[in-house]
Amino acid sequence: MSSERLIYIPLGGAGEIGMNCYVYGYGQPGKERLIVVDLGVTFPDMETTPGVDLILPDVSWLAARADRIEAIFITHAHEDHIGALAHLWPRLKAPVYARRFTGRIGALKFEEQGLQRDAIRIVEPRPEVVEAGPFRVQFVPVSHSIPESSALLIDTPAGRIAHSGDFKLDASPVVGEAFNADEARRIGDEGVKILACDSTNVFSPAPGRSESLLPPALEELVAGAKGMVVATTFASNVARLKSLANAAVANGRSVCLLGRAMRRMVQTAVETGVLTDFPPTVTPEDATQIPRENLMLIVTGSQGERRAASAQLSRGKYLGLSLKEGDLFLFSSKTIPGNEAGVIRIMNALSEMGVDVVDDAGGKYHVSGHANRPDLEQVHELMRPQILLPMHGEHRHLREHAKLGEARGIASIIPVNGTVVDLTGDRPVVAERVETGRIYLDGSVQVGSMDGVIRDRIRMALNGHVLITVIIDEDGEPLGDPWAETMGLSETGRTGKALSEALEEELGEFLSNADSRLLKDDDKLDDAIRRVTRQVCMEEVGKKPEVTVVVSRLVE
Amino acid sequence: MSSERLIYIPLGGAGEIGMNCYVYGYGQPGKERLIVVDLGVTFPDMETTPGVDLILPDVSWLAARADRIEAIFITHAHEDHIGALAHLWPRLKAPVYARRFTGRIGALKFEEQGLQRDAIRIVEPRPEVVEAGPFRVQFVPVSHSIPESSALLIDTPAGRIAHSGDFKLDASPVVGEAFNADEARRIGDEGVKILACDSTNVFSPAPGRSESLLPPALEELVAGAKGMVVATTFASNVARLKSLANAAVANGRSVCLLGRAMRRMVQTAVETGVLTDFPPTVTPEDATQIPRENLMLIVTGSQGERRAASAQLSRGKYLGLSLKEGDLFLFSSKTIPGNEAGVIRIMNALSEMGVDVVDDAGGKYHVSGHANRPDLEQVHELMRPQILLPMHGEHRHLREHAKLGEARGIASIIPVNGTVVDLTGDRPVVAERVETGRIYLDGSVQVGSMDGVIRDRIRMALNGHVLITVIIDEDGEPLGDPWAETMGLSETGRTGKALSEALEEELGEFLSNADSRLLKDDDKLDDAIRRVTRQVCMEEVGKKPEVTVVVSRLVE
Repeated sequence: MSSERLIYIPLGGAGEIGMNCYVYGYGQPGKERLIVVDLGVTFPDMETTPGVDLILPDVSWLAARADRIEAIFITHAHEDHIGALAHLWPRLKAPVYARRFTGRIGALKFEEQGLQRDAIRIVEPRPEVVEAGPFRVQFVPVSHSIPESSALLIDTPAGRIAHSGDFKLDASPVVGEAFNADEARRIGDEGVKILACDSTNVFSPAPGRSESLLPPALEELVAGAKGMVVATTFASNVARLKSLANAAVANGRSVCLLGRAMRRMVQTAVETGVLTDFPPTVTPEDATQIPRENLMLIVTGSQGERRAASAQLSRGKYLGLSLKEGDLFLFSSKTIPGNEAGVIRIMNALSEMGVDVVDDAGGKYHVSGHANRPDLEQVHELMRPQILLPMHGEHRHLREHAKLGEARGIASIIPVNGTVVDLTGDRPVVAERVETGRIYLDGSVQVGSMDGVIRDRIRMALNGHVLITVIIDEDGEPLGDPWAETMGLSETGRTGKALSEALEEELGEFLSNADSRLLKDDDKLDDAIRRVTRQVCMEEVGKKPEVTVVVSRLVE
Repeated sequence: MSSERLIYIPLGGAGEIGMNCYVYGYGQPGKERLIVVDLGVTFPDMETTPGVDLILPDVSWLAARADRIEAIFITHAHEDHIGALAHLWPRLKAPVYARRFTGRIGALKFEEQGLQRDAIRIVEPRPEVVEAGPFRVQFVPVSHSIPESSALLIDTPAGRIAHSGDFKLDASPVVGEAFNADEARRIGDEGVKILACDSTNVFSPAPGRSESLLPPALEELVAGAKGMVVATTFASNVARLKSLANAAVANGRSVCLLGRAMRRMVQTAVETGVLTDFPPTVTPEDATQIPRENLMLIVTGSQGERRAASAQLSRGKYLGLSLKEGDLFLFSSKTIPGNEAGVIRIMNALSEMGVDVVDDAGGKYHVSGHANRPDLEQVHELMRPQILLPMHGEHRHLREHAKLGEARGIASIIPVNGTVVDLTGDRPVVAERVETGRIYLDGSVQVGSMDGVIRDRIRMALNGHVLITVIIDEDGEPLGDPWAETMGLSETGRTGKALSEALEEELGEFLSNADSRLLKDDDKLDDAIRRVTRQVCMEEVGKKPEVTVVVSRLVE
């Protein structure tokens, strides 16, 4: 069987933060049996993906080999690990394995997409083993910023892989299992050939801080508050929600959860048994009856999302509740790069109301869920892998993480999305590359990132859009004047003339002088009209817009 | 003369970072003589102002009172203080006063706009006085991140105003005058009634750090570099450019400046005498002949701007120069919120080349040009004003700064753009409000932010654009089928049918059943077509696009 090989193919998450999707394969080249770890999304932005709802990994390569997929494993329920599952599952159709909380979240997503949830199978942590073709997979609890996050131990005929998922080393994580260095060392003792490891925080030089550092600071902050307290964090950070709620109760305040995602997370965490002793909450309606100094709202929207509860409150009354001078608003969160504008908008709106805003500037009210540089080094030391596959990070994170591995003598590589890495031997070898990319969920359809649809939107946004309609009569002559409509362009130009009039005049002039061959040739006529249109726009308003030309030909 | 009053009106910069424009007036209400301090711009972004070139303050209020403007003062040559000068000056036409370096930059801007530069008058620092109607104005050198930054001392019949401009307290700023606490205290001794003061860094808790801290760290960094070194910072930070160049020379490296803005700044600084002892530089062409270990490039594009030298280098060869494995790239700068994506894009492109990227994460290679919280407190203490006008900052900065003033017993207020503050008495009083806003420079024309032009662009970018053309014949009947063109929408819908075909079919059906009254009424027909179009798009692709309808009526 020397012709069999073990391969690793990141399809998302390796060269970016978010959209995690990793594939392992074992077997004869081209016939490997496959497992998929995580099917995550990333989020659109106005700059590169205006109007898009969600960005999914392009799993065409996998879908074309769906018959070879033994199983899909989901490490945890963050959107960048589970968000694409229900959108892509119909093309993959393999059984999905996850722990209880994660599985429940996955099932809710399946239901939203009208899928049967029975493809999702609940797995208990190690020592339970999932047999998936040549792979034997165990879930190992790790601490992170969501309940039941897991690493995977993947045994293969070519040796053991430890796939970290997202994790931190937290000896007292408030909710969930504590990091246990002895257990990690035992796993190292059993022998780990390959460590595939989260790289997001490799540039953070200090050891990661424990979730348990926050409750005293939160309690003190709430104790000093005179009016209403509002706190926001990620809805899925159940440990944080618990610490916030406890800080409220310790100060004689009732707790109200605002935001559907947050209520769903707490409910799921309670139902699956991962969250216990969460204080009782009141409804928004009841909250309106409670004196503000006895109330704490815990709300969605830590990233400034326009429709979330935090933004709604910053704009005025929301579900009967509103903020006023003397209230306190806490961002118990970090702003993800790219979301600053939305967060700052909320902060200033709150400032105008006289609300005091506290953020994580000092690190007192938030800790990261990822392993920092020294933590990664500790994991390298405990696991003692032969090979390091840095994953989940931009190129710079993967590269830095690989350097860290090399410095310890671990054979390291920078495998970006689409790289097929052969892990059969002692060192990782790039075997080939497969096509990867992004698919945009846009309204109800999926659009390829290279289809030009989004490029056209960006161009219209940058340049405006002009549309010209021309009617050619039965004799091949222009009938009347061309008609110009503009959108996203100044109505009047430099000369003070209406831009559409200037266009109609110039185009009328141009067409009346055009020779009959041009008027007969749809493509050339279209090109010519486009050229004149852009020229007029450039002269009048200094912009070259997108142009759509409609030539209607009357036939007898 | 008890009916005369002193007023302050921020028209930009108060409630935002950037676009500084402040007005002072003295005289009988409605007849005050006016001076303007700064005419800055702010920068567009894809999210709120796609396609816009520059954002200017709306100075309509001022322009309508141009005959009352005595003078325009520019505190320093940063774009957010001088960038709108040449664009708006034709509507204001008052003499412009600035120090030499600032005036030279202003003159270059005037030339670019085809204006005569003789409106710009060069002023020496205090004790030189500019008489401007009831105002007597002196320029007081302050340290900042550009040469010759100045505060203004503005004497009025109602007392003295100290207008800080942008500043920091730097006792050894590398280039330009050092902060002198004794001098500041003497000004306080002379009596300052009103302090109008930079608020941008009020949330930075530690005292500001001196520019002079950087040279040793820079020298050490360059000393350790093996390949080429590339450093980027703001082109106008001439002190930083000097420190970077000195670090190169100290390590036996030649210096090459890349980027027009940077060469222009250095040239202007040398010509106006503010920059001395800048090391000799080599041209890009000569640089290609120098061994990379003997070369340092200082380049534009610290904010990730796509066309600047840093981005060009990250994409490959630029002016014959290119980076490779083992080179070092230094961001001697802070990333302004909103620019993260562009900066990160460059960092990752460099990482792919094997270039080591160093940024300011540790604060070793960059210091801020603004006064931090303790520095502001020191200024309050030295100046001892009766009244504090927090300026230049978002609402949250102004509010926090006002709190700081109040804590010291200084009468403080939060005057956002458009507020007319009466400063005649002992306390500031909001007298009225004037209309302010933003004007977009878009191509070659100015567009009002409320005109809907940019709103339409954003809508097209989010929703796509559909255009429908219908021809109604001489008898009032639809001639042939309607024609649909889509832009920025998936070509095929849920059903697998082409979206434009689905639209044409549905609209054809709709029109063939439409009654003659509807077909005769342009507005109603337009509305109906729009409604059907959106409905079809919603069904097919789940989006409600912008729709332009063109109905052409044939007449005999």
